[in-house]
Order: sequence, then C-alpha cells, then structure tokens
Amino acid sequence: MNDQPRLAISLLDIKAAAARLKGHAIRTPLQHSAALDERTQGRILLKPEMLQVSGSFKFRGAFNRLVQIPEADRSRGVVAWSSGNHAQGVAASAARLGIPATIVMPQDAPALKIANTRGYGAKVRLYDRYTDDRDAIGYAIAAETNAVIVPPFDDPHIMAGQGTVGLEMAEDAAAMGLVFDDVLVCCAGGGLSSGVATAIKATTPETRIWTVEPAGFDDTARSFEAGTPVRNSPAARSICDALQSPTPGTLTFPILQAFGAGGLVVSDEEALDAMAYAFQTLKLVVEPGGAVALAAVLSGKLAVEGRTVGVIMSGGNVDRSMYERALARLP
Amino acid sequence: MNDQPRLAISLLDIKAAAARLKGHAIRTPLQHSAALDERTQGRILLKPEMLQVSGSFKFRGAFNRLVQIPEADRSRGVVAWSSGNHAQGVAASAARLGIPATIVMPQDAPALKIANTRGYGAKVRLYDRYTDDRDAIGYAIAAETNAVIVPPFDDPHIMAGQGTVGLEMAEDAAAMGLVFDDVLVCCAGGGLSSGVATAIKATTPETRIWTVEPAGFDDTARSFEAGTPVRNSPAARSICDALQSPTPGTLTFPILQAFGAGGLVVSDEEALDAMAYAFQTLKLVVEPGGAVALAAVLSGKLAVEGRTVGVIMSGGNVDRSMYERALARLP
Repeated sequence: MNDQPRLAISLLDIKAAAARLKGHAIRTPLQHSAALDERTQGRILLKPEMLQVSGSFKFRGAFNRLVQIPEADRSRGVVAWSSGNHAQGVAASAARLGIPATIVMPQDAPALKIANTRGYGAKVRLYDRYTDDRDAIGYAIAAETNAVIVPPFDDPHIMAGQGTVGLEMAEDAAAMGLVFDDVLVCCAGGGLSSGVATAIKATTPETRIWTVEPAGFDDTARSFEAGTPVRNSPAARSICDALQSPTPGTLTFPILQAFGAGGLVVSDEEALDAMAYAFQTLKLVVEPGGAVALAAVLSGKLAVEGRTVGVIMSGGNVDRSMYERALARLP
Repeated sequence: MNDQPRLAISLLDIKAAAARLKGHAIRTPLQHSAALDERTQGRILLKPEMLQVSGSFKFRGAFNRLVQIPEADRSRGVVAWSSGNHAQGVAASAARLGIPATIVMPQDAPALKIANTRGYGAKVRLYDRYTDDRDAIGYAIAAETNAVIVPPFDDPHIMAGQGTVGLEMAEDAAAMGLVFDDVLVCCAGGGLSSGVATAIKATTPETRIWTVEPAGFDDTARSFEAGTPVRNSPAARSICDALQSPTPGTLTFPILQAFGAGGLVVSDEEALDAMAYAFQTLKLVVEPGGAVALAAVLSGKLAVEGRTVGVIMSGGNVDRSMYERALARLP
C-alpha cells in the first residue's frame, strides 16, 4: 500500500487537455531575446502567454473545463469568480461553446478586464474585494440559476489546462536540444504553477520549479517554509491584481510541495520595471502580475548565469494608466 | 531572347539567406487573434517582427549582408545610414560578427533607436534629416575608412534577407493548410516588400501583395499608378520615422511592379490607432511605421471579409512619448 496522497493531476491529464485545446488555444512560441541573455548571462526562454486567446493563459484551463460540460447541461450556463483573467478566459470559452456565463468580479479590477469580459458576452456581477465574500456571491448565483461553477484554480481540469503551458515549453525546449535548469512561474492559487510543474517534472525531473509572488501575497513561499498552507494578511495590497489569492489551493499546493518547488518574491516596483523592460526590449505588453517571473530574473532573485531558464509571462491585460506608470520608470 | 529585365533576387537567394540566418535570427511566429478576426470578419495572420533581434525585421537583411563579408575584409568595418531600424540591424549584426560599425542617423530619430544602436557598440554620426545629405556623409566615411557600405534596401543581399519574412509566412501558412489571398507589408525603399513579394509569389502566385505607406510618403503607391518611380515632396512629414524614403528603390521597385503589387496609404492617426489596438488586443508593442499594414486592415483600406490575409508588423522600436500618444487615443 502506498500511503502518499495521490496528486490531483498527471501528465496524462495535461496531454488530454492539450488535445482538447488544439485548434482553440494558441500555441504560444518559446521565445528568446539576445538582449535579455546578455543582461542576465543566462539562456532565458520566454513563454509569452499574453499572446494567448483572452490575453492570458487562463483561457486554457477554462476551455478545458467548459468543453467537458455535456451538451445537455450547457444551457444551465456557467458561473465563475475572478479578478479578471480567469473571467476573460471563462467568458471567451463560453462564447465559443455557446454557453451563457456569469462572472463575479471585484469592482476595482482593471477596467479593461471588465470591459473585455462583457465584450465576450458574459454577464458581470461586481463586488467589493475587501468587504464582500465573493465565494458566497458566486455560490448564491449557482444555486439560483443551477449554473456550473468554474473555479479559478482548485479543479483538476483547470489545472490540467494550465499545465499545457508547461507541456509546450517542455516540447519546444526538447526540440531545441535544451533542458531547463529552472522554470519560473507566477503564482496566486497555484493552478498554473501546479500544472506547469506536473508537465515539466514528468519530462525533465532535474528542472527546478520556482513560484514567483508579489510581496504581501507571498503565501505560497511562506507555505513552502512552513510545510503547510498559510494565509496572507487581509491588509496586504499589490498592483498585481491577478495574484491576490489569500492562500494556496487544496489541490495545487500538494503538487508544488511534492515537486520541491521554491518560492521567490518580488516588489511591485520590480514588477513595474519588468513591464517597462518588456516594452522597451521584448516588445511585449505584460500586466503587473504577468511580469513577476521576469521581474525575479531581472532583479537577481535567482542566480541564472550560465543556466537555461524558462520564464512564463502569464498575461497582458493591463489598463493604460497602470502601463503609463511602468513606462514612467524608463530613463 | 528574353528582353524582360532580370529581377534582382529570386526565391533561391531568399532560401540561401534563410540558411545563413538560421541560429541567428528569430523565426517569428505566424500569429492569429480571435478578436481581430471577429472585428474584420477575415482570417488575419500576423507576422510580429518586433520580436526579431534588434526589434525589427532589419536584422535579417543586415546579417545576410555582413556575414558574407570575407574574413580578411571585416576589420575595414561597415558603414550604413538609417533612421534607426536598419541602424540597429546593422549594429546588432556587426556586434555578433565582430565587425566595427559606423551608422549615420538623423538627429531626430527616436532616442531609443539611437541609444540601442550605440548599445550594440556602433559609432553613431548624427545628421539633420532636412538639410544634410546623408548619402554624402556616408560615402565620405566609407572613402575615409575604407569601410564596406551596407545600403538600407537597394542591395540583393539585403532584399533576400528581408525576404525570409515572406518565406517563413509562406511555409507556416502552408503548414496550416492556408493560402494567403492578400499580404500587406509596410514600404519605404521596398527592401522588405520586394523580398516578401518574391517569396510569396514563388509559392502562391495567386496571392495579392499590397504595400502600405503613410500619407505624404506614398511614393510607391503613386509610382504604381504612374508606372515609373516618382518622388515625395521634401515638405512631407509623418510620425512613421521608419518609412520616409524619398522614392522607391532601383532594384526593389521593378520586383513590386513585376508582381503586380497594389499600393495602400494610411494616415498618421490610423497608424496611432493601430498601435493602440496592438497594445490593448494583441499585446504587442509596435512602432508607427511598423503599424501601417495593421492600420490598413483596421481602417478598412482593403476589403478582408472572408479572406486570408497576412499582415506584417515590421518593428517595435518606439519611444515612450510616442507610445503614450498612441495610448491616449484609447477610449
């Protein structure tokens, strides 16, 4: 008898998700920048998921979940709660599959994210991030309408969908004859990082996985240290609107732990500098939460000299005002 | 006897350039946006050359030229004149090959382009775009130092290098089972457009090639109409700093003419709107001159409904102030 807890997903689930996503999600390139390599003295391979449908990786998990809803149940609709990228991923998937969607979003989410979610045809219900209980609002809508709940991260189908990011990275690196020494991935609830870890570790077990979080929302890094999930202070604030989960996921955290992931933390200023660097040098539009893995490399949170390092840029849904704040940091 | 003038390059030259560029240039993806397709009701395939080494396609032609300089001649160095993207392409190529480079640039070129050119280790000589004769300055430097002149467009090796953009597009479209109905490409001297036309027409002769120019610098479109090269007014001004050649090239124009290219023209405001669209929806940083082909599609200069259309975004080297001018047009 094996008394280890079974992990929520495996490489097979991710491969099945990849087959479902084919022709729907964009296979984003694994991209290289001579300037970034020169600056870091490492070999940095970027995964630009802002180029994904809906402007972030979240489309992958959402579509993998929604496409598995039986035809007969689709008219019930779906409901999700999200600061914005999962919202857009669910709304875009629902639109493609002809499923009605209701999304519960914080009223201080970037205006672009709210507008895009509505643009995909979803109904948006706003709440106050600091006083309302978004779970309660979401469950109430589900109870009332009988809609299928699409959780942001703690769901095997969502995790497997996000894991296709890692599967593509592993395949593309192998095609280049490379093995990642490190893979850096932003982390809130851990859907993306647990999926990516599963895919990468199944292919090259020697690769080290690093979650990257903004200061104040470093629950995953502190949970690694504590050996058990801990929570962020309700007083914490960050410009990384996409990375503000209170605590690691129940299904995601054991995977990150099992694969020995390490936790890195960057400041909001470092995230803004990475956004500006991506504008000036990489020519990619990245949002604050999507920039933290790049920020960790640029600010030297990890020694990358001489190493082959995968860096996931998870999304680019940023308002003009926040973007101008990043550009203002350019010399 | 065939009395047709021989065209300066063929598909074979472009394939040879592609072989030389392998491992040096980035093979940029052929990218698709569901939002753009929905807006235009066409199937738009984007070629994002801002992701190329040096931030524009110009690296391709420059590297293809410089790598063919015999070892014994490399210490003589190279000299080029350019508003900025060819400058960076030559400087980046020269740095990789250990060749000294001097670049003659207009003093009103974007500060980023001048800084990047110097950043690659090139010597920069500034001139006044409206009063100085940049050719004379360049030739004087070449005479004095015995350096090899690297022309911006009217050179078969440069044209063949830029043509690899079209070769990759043709290969990737074929792999998707698609044939371009139209390919839109920005045009100044015609190095990129003549190379792309050669590659695309050799593969799918039924594809229509369209040059896109900013108003005031529409010499190519007017030359198509006149049947012979005409010049722009010296009084013309545009924010598209990369697209300000006075007249079509001697080697490039006959190719565009032979392949029956059409000429489209957009306003500076339409280029800015396309930059803002690329920020908000495509998550790509594009400079004014690099945005004109996208602008032509977004502003309805060509009917694309139901058609498969290749759109080249040629570069992303834009200063913060100009970028903010584009963002300010967002609602």
